[in-house]
Amino acid sequence: MSAFFGDIAPIQYEGPDSDNPLAFRHYNPDEVVMGKRMEDHLRFAVCYWHNFAWEGGDPFGGRTFDRPWFGGTMEDARLKADVAFDMFRILGAPYYCFHDVDMRPEGDSFAQSTRNLEAMVDLFAQKQAETGRKLLWGTANMFSDRRWMSGAATNPDPHVFAYAAATVKTCMDATLKLGGENYVLWGGREGYETLLNTDLSQELDHMGRFLNMVVEYKHKIGFEGMILIEPKPQEPSKHQYDYDVATVYGFLKRYGLEDEVRVNIEQGHAILAGHSFEHEIALANALGIFGSIDMNRNDYQSGWDTDQFPNNVPEVALAYYEILRGGGFTTGGTNFDAKLRRQSLDPEDLLIAHIGGMDVCARGLKAAAAMLEDGKLEDARRARYAGWDGEQGLLDTSLDAIFERVVSEGIDPQPRSGRQEALENIVNRYV
Amino acid sequence: MSAFFGDIAPIQYEGPDSDNPLAFRHYNPDEVVMGKRMEDHLRFAVCYWHNFAWEGGDPFGGRTFDRPWFGGTMEDARLKADVAFDMFRILGAPYYCFHDVDMRPEGDSFAQSTRNLEAMVDLFAQKQAETGRKLLWGTANMFSDRRWMSGAATNPDPHVFAYAAATVKTCMDATLKLGGENYVLWGGREGYETLLNTDLSQELDHMGRFLNMVVEYKHKIGFEGMILIEPKPQEPSKHQYDYDVATVYGFLKRYGLEDEVRVNIEQGHAILAGHSFEHEIALANALGIFGSIDMNRNDYQSGWDTDQFPNNVPEVALAYYEILRGGGFTTGGTNFDAKLRRQSLDPEDLLIAHIGGMDVCARGLKAAAAMLEDGKLEDARRARYAGWDGEQGLLDTSLDAIFERVVSEGIDPQPRSGRQEALENIVNRYV
Amino acid sequence: MSAFFGDIAPIQYEGPDSDNPLAFRHYNPDEVVMGKRMEDHLRFAVCYWHNFAWEGGDPFGGRTFDRPWFGGTMEDARLKADVAFDMFRILGAPYYCFHDVDMRPEGDSFAQSTRNLEAMVDLFAQKQAETGRKLLWGTANMFSDRRWMSGAATNPDPHVFAYAAATVKTCMDATLKLGGENYVLWGGREGYETLLNTDLSQELDHMGRFLNMVVEYKHKIGFEGMILIEPKPQEPSKHQYDYDVATVYGFLKRYGLEDEVRVNIEQGHAILAGHSFEHEIALANALGIFGSIDMNRNDYQSGWDTDQFPNNVPEVALAYYEILRGGGFTTGGTNFDAKLRRQSLDPEDLLIAHIGGMDVCARGLKAAAAMLEDGKLEDARRARYAGWDGEQGLLDTSLDAIFERVVSEGIDPQPRSGRQEALENIVNRYV
Amino acid sequence: MSAFFGDIAPIQYEGPDSDNPLAFRHYNPDEVVMGKRMEDHLRFAVCYWHNFAWEGGDPFGGRTFDRPWFGGTMEDARLKADVAFDMFRILGAPYYCFHDVDMRPEGDSFAQSTRNLEAMVDLFAQKQAETGRKLLWGTANMFSDRRWMSGAATNPDPHVFAYAAATVKTCMDATLKLGGENYVLWGGREGYETLLNTDLSQELDHMGRFLNMVVEYKHKIGFEGMILIEPKPQEPSKHQYDYDVATVYGFLKRYGLEDEVRVNIEQGHAILAGHSFEHEIALANALGIFGSIDMNRNDYQSGWDTDQFPNNVPEVALAYYEILRGGGFTTGGTNFDAKLRRQSLDPEDLLIAHIGGMDVCARGLKAAAAMLEDGKLEDARRARYAGWDGEQGLLDTSLDAIFERVVSEGIDPQPRSGRQEALENIVNRYV
Repeated sequence: MSAFFGDIAPIQYEGPDSDNPLAFRHYNPDEVVMGKRMEDHLRFAVCYWHNFAWEGGDPFGGRTFDRPWFGGTMEDARLKADVAFDMFRILGAPYYCFHDVDMRPEGDSFAQSTRNLEAMVDLFAQKQAETGRKLLWGTANMFSDRRWMSGAATNPDPHVFAYAAATVKTCMDATLKLGGENYVLWGGREGYETLLNTDLSQELDHMGRFLNMVVEYKHKIGFEGMILIEPKPQEPSKHQYDYDVATVYGFLKRYGLEDEVRVNIEQGHAILAGHSFEHEIALANALGIFGSIDMNRNDYQSGWDTDQFPNNVPEVALAYYEILRGGGFTTGGTNFDAKLRRQSLDPEDLLIAHIGGMDVCARGLKAAAAMLEDGKLEDARRARYAGWDGEQGLLDTSLDAIFERVVSEGIDPQPRSGRQEALENIVNRYV
Repeated sequence: MSAFFGDIAPIQYEGPDSDNPLAFRHYNPDEVVMGKRMEDHLRFAVCYWHNFAWEGGDPFGGRTFDRPWFGGTMEDARLKADVAFDMFRILGAPYYCFHDVDMRPEGDSFAQSTRNLEAMVDLFAQKQAETGRKLLWGTANMFSDRRWMSGAATNPDPHVFAYAAATVKTCMDATLKLGGENYVLWGGREGYETLLNTDLSQELDHMGRFLNMVVEYKHKIGFEGMILIEPKPQEPSKHQYDYDVATVYGFLKRYGLEDEVRVNIEQGHAILAGHSFEHEIALANALGIFGSIDMNRNDYQSGWDTDQFPNNVPEVALAYYEILRGGGFTTGGTNFDAKLRRQSLDPEDLLIAHIGGMDVCARGLKAAAAMLEDGKLEDARRARYAGWDGEQGLLDTSLDAIFERVVSEGIDPQPRSGRQEALENIVNRYV
Repeated sequence: MSAFFGDIAPIQYEGPDSDNPLAFRHYNPDEVVMGKRMEDHLRFAVCYWHNFAWEGGDPFGGRTFDRPWFGGTMEDARLKADVAFDMFRILGAPYYCFHDVDMRPEGDSFAQSTRNLEAMVDLFAQKQAETGRKLLWGTANMFSDRRWMSGAATNPDPHVFAYAAATVKTCMDATLKLGGENYVLWGGREGYETLLNTDLSQELDHMGRFLNMVVEYKHKIGFEGMILIEPKPQEPSKHQYDYDVATVYGFLKRYGLEDEVRVNIEQGHAILAGHSFEHEIALANALGIFGSIDMNRNDYQSGWDTDQFPNNVPEVALAYYEILRGGGFTTGGTNFDAKLRRQSLDPEDLLIAHIGGMDVCARGLKAAAAMLEDGKLEDARRARYAGWDGEQGLLDTSLDAIFERVVSEGIDPQPRSGRQEALENIVNRYV
Repeated sequence: MSAFFGDIAPIQYEGPDSDNPLAFRHYNPDEVVMGKRMEDHLRFAVCYWHNFAWEGGDPFGGRTFDRPWFGGTMEDARLKADVAFDMFRILGAPYYCFHDVDMRPEGDSFAQSTRNLEAMVDLFAQKQAETGRKLLWGTANMFSDRRWMSGAATNPDPHVFAYAAATVKTCMDATLKLGGENYVLWGGREGYETLLNTDLSQELDHMGRFLNMVVEYKHKIGFEGMILIEPKPQEPSKHQYDYDVATVYGFLKRYGLEDEVRVNIEQGHAILAGHSFEHEIALANALGIFGSIDMNRNDYQSGWDTDQFPNNVPEVALAYYEILRGGGFTTGGTNFDAKLRRQSLDPEDLLIAHIGGMDVCARGLKAAAAMLEDGKLEDARRARYAGWDGEQGLLDTSLDAIFERVVSEGIDPQPRSGRQEALENIVNRYV
């Protein structure tokens, strides 16, 4: 155990009336919701990057956090790992997620970086064994270093494509070794800053081929986790190819990958794309590609990726409602891709932020389950479409045949109330 | 000839120095650009709805325009047609576009509305023959009447689905009879206002089946034009299924229609979806589904569909640049889906707005052609990707093989300038 | 009593566990919160326009509602009033608000319209006396008729300015007669569509003079209510002069009105201006111009004024928190400037929407009161600024004197955690 | 001369037909426009921060630029200054602008940082004398260092307020010594991240007092330049107090500073606040507080401050049109607060970006001047308001007197066309 968090004991569930800032008021891992333990529903993961690698910078200012492991040596990396696993333990989060560059120092060469990674993977494996923590997913950071400035798989320079392929190979190996349940690709710079210097068609083809190689390699090494793409519409790029769930679906269909790859949906990215979080989840379910979620919240008015901790129960409840309607997580889970505000300097802030987020998710899950069990929303939805029960034939005929029927029967449909406010009131009984 | 426009003579090209507000300064139909007449490049169409059916209302106010044909009788419809063909003639626009409800009064029944439509189609056919004007595309308005309030093909009521199918049948018949070169579907209310009452999966399937019926009917009647979908992300609905080009592509792939249906891209809709107009065109070209454009402009800061006349030459030039790079229009064209500001009350305003728009498009086209002929932009683009010429093998191998190569060769790619500002300066030589 | 709502009885408080859609679960008028009855805190008002005058149209479709009073005669107006007061009674809302054009038919002349208004005011006065309902505020609709298309007080045509002045006079008279507690001005078209035809300076001066005349007339007739301006940044205009609270404050200062006029803040308008609702309230309190609120919600992603019923308790709680911190309403109240979705066709939907909204506000108020009474948030805020207690002298000196002190004392301030997540968690204990 | 730019000679005007990327095609300093040299109209300044201090980072990646002066020593600072003055000379820009931290290394203490600044100011003064370059304005960076994370003048810690006051004192001294024509305050972190920990009222008062101290110190030291505030609505903060021109005006009025302080308006900040650039300029002129501009462009769809070089002539022309209508710059000028895209790595890119920007401004200025000289726009504007010539009495009476007149004269104003499209077409003759 490191000294970073002092003597803070593991966070306990104390119930809604507790005013202990270091207690759960709603997240009670063993509580059963719809026949499953809450922990098994939510499958919380803590992310390595925002908590341990991010220094508090923003576009107008540099590091605000003062962490003892910011030095960049292997020793720093090990201290960071100690603190991280301390935090996983204190929070009782069963999973974590990482990028290669979060956990290992950059080496002088690709080979050296790989060796650093392998050494850290060994350490992580040992810590997992000691603590019972698990890896929800691994991924490669192919956007921070200047070599990626013009993209990774979509870079105009084939050597960058190669470097990206080699990097993903090492990260998939690491994920396999750590028993990760998924492998995620976020195309941070797969997109463009200006169309003027971009060959859209060629870049899309390269990205399609790259992803096929990822799937081929997964099978080759026997990785049984799911491959996930994380959509985002823009930032850092002006346009990112994995814009949203619908765009990723079209991409997967184009390159024959719709049965192999699913999506990791982030609340903030959904909002930046002009969608609600629940829309993206519902659409992924409808298209058969729902995988996992990055839980956070985005300021609706800020226009950039704010990655705040979730704090709005009604919104979170609607997200879990769509997840539960779709059958819940299989390999996926709830990863907090959320970061402290850069003014929240204290170690305790890291814990408090996650405690708040976990409680909000627990409330959201319980509200979603209660709405499903109540059944009023689903009854109303089914009733609205009930007319189709006797009219499936309309889907199996032709425009002119339908035309004849409309004329001969004098069909003149009359609108019925959509009852949106009544349904919203039902939701508000539970959130 | 009607009296509406008084004695205004057909608009002539007078060159850039003219200060006659009723003359073209840049649009010169017979001028040859890249080996083709400007008129044949641009294929201008005037829309029936904004010019002749819209009354000047907005969400906070009603009719501002005072047009003699606003009465709603067949006589009004014929007067409207007289004025419309007058305007086509004065402007020298070769094409027009229509919805059924723009051209015919609503009847007491579907059958009566259809008879009204047929009568007007006969009149339009006669006017086309007399004036040489042509139909770029026809479409059905399935969003204004209250029967469509919850969607057309995606309505929870199967009778509305039937009414929609019958309506499209009549509009496709009308389009065929008038020699239309395309048939467009804009799903104004194919989407949802709230997910709470929506069965996303069922609605998408119905929409897929509906579109397949459209394609089947097209072949049955021998319509040789193109079927086009017009993407829009939202408004009037909270979410519209045909969100943007990428979304429509995924939809077409899902329902096996990618070889039968293309897109009609609107500048304003592109912007509402978070894209530049040229992005949407370039993407449609990359995906093989580019069809036609609705030319207008959207206030970037208004958040709703402003449908203004284009007036920014640099933006329009980039749009035509992508169109020309893709080979130019085939069945498509430049339809002005643009409306007067509601304070622009005078008949002359209708002409002036189109003259301005046509001149802006002509400037944009000429600039685009000059940039292509100059070749500097395409040279720079090719040079940026030139490294791939000898590295196609990277696309035909595996992650681990590439990994071996990166390690053994010590590949360490160095970034090169993307030269965005230099390329923007080249564009500014022409716009 | 009209037949419109059938035999629905007045809505009763049944407590949180009720699943009766026609009962309050949280709004309990006589319940005491922070020493005051809930009804006296919230001061709910039902608006006349959205509920009784709006027909369900949007930019892409016309009337969806089917109301028996949509005919436009005085008889229709009286039926509408019967239904309205029925609804006020059923909901138990103590207040209502109106525009002139909501309550009276347009006449053939200004004089006739005024007589229609006066007749309806007499009827309303009688209904108020019979039912105990009161007028929170009156206002003039100076944006719907085409005469206002280019503004009212800021119209380039002085006759429109005159018409506006005369109209406001009649509406202030009506408000006085009905015992209104405020008079509101929303400058729906006080702004511009294009700067190119606008004399910004002259229009601002006219608007300033107009508002001074309003204040002068208020004193002349002995109206003791408050004059309120309702900020909105845009829509219907491209730019509206009363953009937000800060802009209105500057305007009031410029024209010497900061002690005479306050603001009526709408949630949706705040959001369209890029602000949170609580920001606008807090700022108005800081500037001494807080008056009243228009409660609704705006879809953050729609970009236009959606005027939905509030349904997010955490957001509403933060708004009431700022209202309570500022001392609560004096002449102001909570007016539901919210409308049904246009697919919500049934009379019952009108009630259900308001019941939901009133419950959400009640929850928000109770949460806000609990947070204030708990005191943790205010304690933390005070503690954050506590350093100033001994340093007020810094505000009463000069840059060079401070410079000397910084150098001589070697002042080197160290950042302290802003604890945002901890504070958000505290809020989440109550919402 | 440094070696950074190699042997690039000063940029010359070669006229519109030149295809030399290192020549001006439109900016011709000595060309006379409306009776004044173009250089004297535009008063171009090159900024120190983006060009010489920014390393190419964004929220998802670090340094991309490779500059020999990035080390942080005084020697680096001097090399940077050599390159900067080289660039000013090559571009022929008469002015530059700086923050303290751009030009000097951070010291171990405030006193040391001040000495570093003074040393660099001496060097800059010498370089100004040698090269004839001048300082348009100086400013203090009070947002990058972690000490400013919670604000400068509005910090809850009085020692930060003191540090800010001392810092501004040194920067005003530096600006005076270098003959700066203005001193600018941009409140990068004057605002809040969350209202929950913010005392809005106290922070505004502190900011008001701080600005008064700035004005007092200006007079004390005999600085004859203008004090300017630069509005920005958000980023890095969630909300910034100097939101836009209208907000700053209200602030100045509140603290009695409207005759002492003006605004430096940035295109990108205007857009982030929901305004066009020309709106902010026109409003500042109407309110009497126009000072200077930061020229750049913001991607309308990116939602954050993109600080790109201007490249849209029609937009730039409308900005200069409002500047010329207001009489042109006095102490202000055109500062390029624009930065290379982070992929534009080469020294030449710095020059090319500025050449493009300067040419775009020159075209904008010439177009604006031509529109003013043509007079059609101003004639139309005057004609639109001409009715007021005989109706000034309406502004000098009362609501009830006007009411009597409307009734007795039967005033019934009829709308007239606003002719927006016709005016836009006139603009398009010149851009």
